[in-house]
Amino acid sequence: MRFVELIRKKRNGHTLSTDQLQALVDAYTEGNLPDYQMASFLMAVYFQSMEPSELTAWTKSMLYSGEVLDLSEIDGIKVDKHSTGGVGDKISLILAPLAAAAGLRVPMISGRGLGHTGGTLDKLESIPGFDVNQSVARFKELVATHGLGLIGQTGEIAPADKELYALRDVTATVECIPLIASSIMSKKLAEGIDSLVLDVKVGSGAFMKNLDDARTLATTMIDIGESMDRPVRALITDMDQPLGEAVGNSLEVIESIDILRGEGPEDATMVTLELVAEMLDVAGKVTDRQETIDELRGYLDDGTALDIFADLIEDQGGDPEVCRNTSRLPTAEYTTEFAAQKSGYITSINAEEVGIAAMELGAGRETKDDTIDHSVGLVFNRKRGDGVDEGDSILTIHYNDADDLEDVERRLREAIIIGDDAPADTPPLIFERLGDSTTGDKR
Amino acid sequence: MRFVELIRKKRNGHTLSTDQLQALVDAYTEGNLPDYQMASFLMAVYFQSMEPSELTAWTKSMLYSGEVLDLSEIDGIKVDKHSTGGVGDKISLILAPLAAAAGLRVPMISGRGLGHTGGTLDKLESIPGFDVNQSVARFKELVATHGLGLIGQTGEIAPADKELYALRDVTATVECIPLIASSIMSKKLAEGIDSLVLDVKVGSGAFMKNLDDARTLATTMIDIGESMDRPVRALITDMDQPLGEAVGNSLEVIESIDILRGEGPEDATMVTLELVAEMLDVAGKVTDRQETIDELRGYLDDGTALDIFADLIEDQGGDPEVCRNTSRLPTAEYTTEFAAQKSGYITSINAEEVGIAAMELGAGRETKDDTIDHSVGLVFNRKRGDGVDEGDSILTIHYNDADDLEDVERRLREAIIIGDDAPADTPPLIFERLGDSTTGDKR
Repeated sequence: MRFVELIRKKRNGHTLSTDQLQALVDAYTEGNLPDYQMASFLMAVYFQSMEPSELTAWTKSMLYSGEVLDLSEIDGIKVDKHSTGGVGDKISLILAPLAAAAGLRVPMISGRGLGHTGGTLDKLESIPGFDVNQSVARFKELVATHGLGLIGQTGEIAPADKELYALRDVTATVECIPLIASSIMSKKLAEGIDSLVLDVKVGSGAFMKNLDDARTLATTMIDIGESMDRPVRALITDMDQPLGEAVGNSLEVIESIDILRGEGPEDATMVTLELVAEMLDVAGKVTDRQETIDELRGYLDDGTALDIFADLIEDQGGDPEVCRNTSRLPTAEYTTEFAAQKSGYITSINAEEVGIAAMELGAGRETKDDTIDHSVGLVFNRKRGDGVDEGDSILTIHYNDADDLEDVERRLREAIIIGDDAPADTPPLIFERLGDSTTGDKR
Repeated sequence: MRFVELIRKKRNGHTLSTDQLQALVDAYTEGNLPDYQMASFLMAVYFQSMEPSELTAWTKSMLYSGEVLDLSEIDGIKVDKHSTGGVGDKISLILAPLAAAAGLRVPMISGRGLGHTGGTLDKLESIPGFDVNQSVARFKELVATHGLGLIGQTGEIAPADKELYALRDVTATVECIPLIASSIMSKKLAEGIDSLVLDVKVGSGAFMKNLDDARTLATTMIDIGESMDRPVRALITDMDQPLGEAVGNSLEVIESIDILRGEGPEDATMVTLELVAEMLDVAGKVTDRQETIDELRGYLDDGTALDIFADLIEDQGGDPEVCRNTSRLPTAEYTTEFAAQKSGYITSINAEEVGIAAMELGAGRETKDDTIDHSVGLVFNRKRGDGVDEGDSILTIHYNDADDLEDVERRLREAIIIGDDAPADTPPLIFERLGDSTTGDKR
């Protein structure tokens, strides 16, 4: 098979066969297809997209390029959640213990943050001693014992996707829905899950800036899952302003613990409850949606979910006392208030710019090799729609290096818009619910 | 400058600046831009094309990546011709001495054949002793002495184009008009010519299969030339059937010598005369087109052009006697007639398939590393429109290996269509004349 002919075929908008796509992925992973041929193929896919049959073949080839976990020996229904990434998105830390409290098994393999978005692994590593690197055997034990495990991607999981992602990153082929969808699905299906719930973010802080793109990405992933007999649901949720109040690793762990106590911000709490309810629904464990939501709130209010989280932290080498005493988490040396420049109403908070401001403080990575400062970040005191008087604190900046402040404050002044009137309408937290939901209202 | 941002910019359909394009070419030539980034950039260009300002910058960057010949010390007007490639296209061998006979200077740097198309260098190398590898200094001497030189591309001419072409060949980005046009123009303008005439082929044996594409390619090259103050003319000529009667290296040299004697096939003769007339016109040396054509025919009939060719052959190390005695050229061991399967009229001869048949005999290269057999090929006895009786010879196959015959004959049976009626109309040899011609009729 001549690979240049396969590139030409895709370039001309034709459909490649399963064997042809598998040959491309296999040859690339084995080092028999040079980067330059894969790069031109990926750019051709950017313009010509992939048919459903191609997406399934491409995803499967990446999935089976490495180890696919077999969790069949663990009782219970294995369901995971994947978020497409946002600013202040700490949902995984709350969702996984809460879903475990409700009886699900959550084998969650997460990633690190890059650019304006945070990563679950970075947040977990704010907890002193917490080790995200666990063997597959130990990961299975964690899921069997606690109902969840929270680890990082190993070299054994979908190595083809890892190599392809690195190539996409340097060839301007990241922003491509079929490639995003197949990348996510190949990693998630390697976890050995029965089904999956997607949190597809839309808005200024999300990769998908509009609802149409978010919907296309969601349905693409749902279709891939269905073609492989894995039921997939998706919620399209708001990422036009940061989620919750905290942005920054240690600060988001603190907020997660607050939510696990039933005392956190309502937006992040609601999105988490809806996602866990969807996980239970896809597992066939929901008869009445509202009852399920109420039951889940109970696991927050009575401490069940927090106890599970604390036990898991301990078993992954971390300090479980942080769940009772959040001052044991890293704290930035200084804080300063970011005040409203004028009186009025906050009409928008550009989440991407907020994410970049947090990154500039040290909470995130500009490039993959940057190290991060777990203690720094931003905590919002007002959100979109809130009224402010000139001089009121909109947010608190937690920082270690005063040299960062000028740039960060300039960026925040541009990111946060104060208008004379309250915004006319409040966008919903959850725009749409996609996939074959049986109990959720389609919105 | 982050190259991935330039790829993204092109991918998104924006226009790159001259500095940005130059940076890409320079970095690539210097080894500071990896193949995979250039590959994705080229595929983005395939889909998003290039604006005129980008084409000029891209061509200039390739042109000045190497040596640009300075022929200012040579008296006379330096004009070259470039053909986009075809089957049986031996025009350069006749055109260059004929233009020299008419007083022009023709510094012609040619290429080799690949796939179904032949190359001028391969044809020249059929002549015993002929050396296409000459230093730049020697090349200038040849042009000054004989009015022409016929050499191969040196490593010093447009090295960026050479590297980019090799990458395009393996990344399915060859068939892209802006990349084809800039590649040709960067090499031709490096010859130090005052102006250029293009022979843009259209039809089954050409890279451009339809008139629209041929016209776009021609005007793209004319515009690039104009932006660099080099007047460029283009003739769009028929390549739906092979040009002339011979296909194959030595056989085409024999036919070229026949044409230089004024005794060759009329189609190849006419296209050559028109191209040389256009070269003279762009040099400001034509007052009456028909007079010029008649004068040029005179240089064929009286042997002037052939004598120039013989002198050049001798000075480039070859055997000039071939011009008087073509049996000194390599000859295939065997010949066989390819006969009409039925009576009727030849309605079409697929030139690409004929080219591939010649390649299968050994006259061409399937890949760059193949060696070729100069002696083999095909000589047509009938062409499109001719009547045939069953069993009449349509062409003579010159071969050395009888094992090749079965495939070649099967291919020719499919390539040559015999119908009951003569084809309704004869396509013109020259479809269009483009560029700012002053004396040629626009057709």
